[in-house]
Amino acid sequence: MSIEQITKTIRDVPDFPIAGVLFKDIMPVLADAKLFKETIDLFVARYKDQGIAKIAAVDARGFLFAGAVATQIGAGLIPIRKKGKLPYKTIEETYSLEYGTATLTMHVDAIQKGEKVLIMDDLLATGGTALASAHLVEKLGGQVAELAFLVELDFLKGREKLTGYSLYAPIVF
Amino acid sequence: MSIEQITKTIRDVPDFPIAGVLFKDIMPVLADAKLFKETIDLFVARYKDQGIAKIAAVDARGFLFAGAVATQIGAGLIPIRKKGKLPYKTIEETYSLEYGTATLTMHVDAIQKGEKVLIMDDLLATGGTALASAHLVEKLGGQVAELAFLVELDFLKGREKLTGYSLYAPIVF
Repeated sequence: MSIEQITKTIRDVPDFPIAGVLFKDIMPVLADAKLFKETIDLFVARYKDQGIAKIAAVDARGFLFAGAVATQIGAGLIPIRKKGKLPYKTIEETYSLEYGTATLTMHVDAIQKGEKVLIMDDLLATGGTALASAHLVEKLGGQVAELAFLVELDFLKGREKLTGYSLYAPIVF
Repeated sequence: MSIEQITKTIRDVPDFPIAGVLFKDIMPVLADAKLFKETIDLFVARYKDQGIAKIAAVDARGFLFAGAVATQIGAGLIPIRKKGKLPYKTIEETYSLEYGTATLTMHVDAIQKGEKVLIMDDLLATGGTALASAHLVEKLGGQVAELAFLVELDFLKGREKLTGYSLYAPIVF
């Protein structure tokens, strides 16, 4: 079954990005043409014919999935990027990290009022990035259809930070 | 004709990222579901059935295109990222920028020897990133099938730095 195969192919990298963290490296899944297609197909099956106008892709690993899903479900692709990366006028949302803060931005014209927007990233960890992303979409008048991830790290309890939003992650560690 | 429509939809942003630069913002193309699909279809038509095993996607805007093209031509997706972003063992290539240097990396196991690899980015400017990307692919034993961009900025003469490689960019400014 393909989700099992995808799960087995995710690689554990100890001590990245800092000592004590066991990083889940999804790149071996994407490098395998068959598994990458099966991964994308999971999302396409779930989101086709759901009236999703845009996929908001979270910088940078979310970009790897969102383009493939967007073209197959007939949605536009809009990026959520770290501050300073988007060239046009932006709105921004700052949130707390374990040490310090981070700021995410979107172009002010990325969403038409009322559009259904799917937010995509590779992995749900503590949920800070995901929540800030949802707030950005809503500030622009979008309706968050769901937040989709390939992987959820359950022990980091990101889901608790995202109550009120629908979440999807086919693989949970 | 769709290339004309795509070209018209690319937005000029003056003075980004620094004063005096007229930035070509492709995001309005991607936000338009129909134009984004037409953009991806250009690449799919060119690269399907060409025996391309992997698409090497350049961080970060190249990721937006490469996932969609890879799944449609049956290729794997491998990232070329700025130093410090990839978790597993990497090889790296440092190149000169106008001020200072930049270092790109790839995972050591991203390519099997002899595989045909398509390198994708959104835009060809001076060619430094593209050339470093090609060197990385070759260091891993890959064969660079072509370097593909949505946009080429002809006046920056990136093409001259990439002699010996096949280049494709449907839109030239």
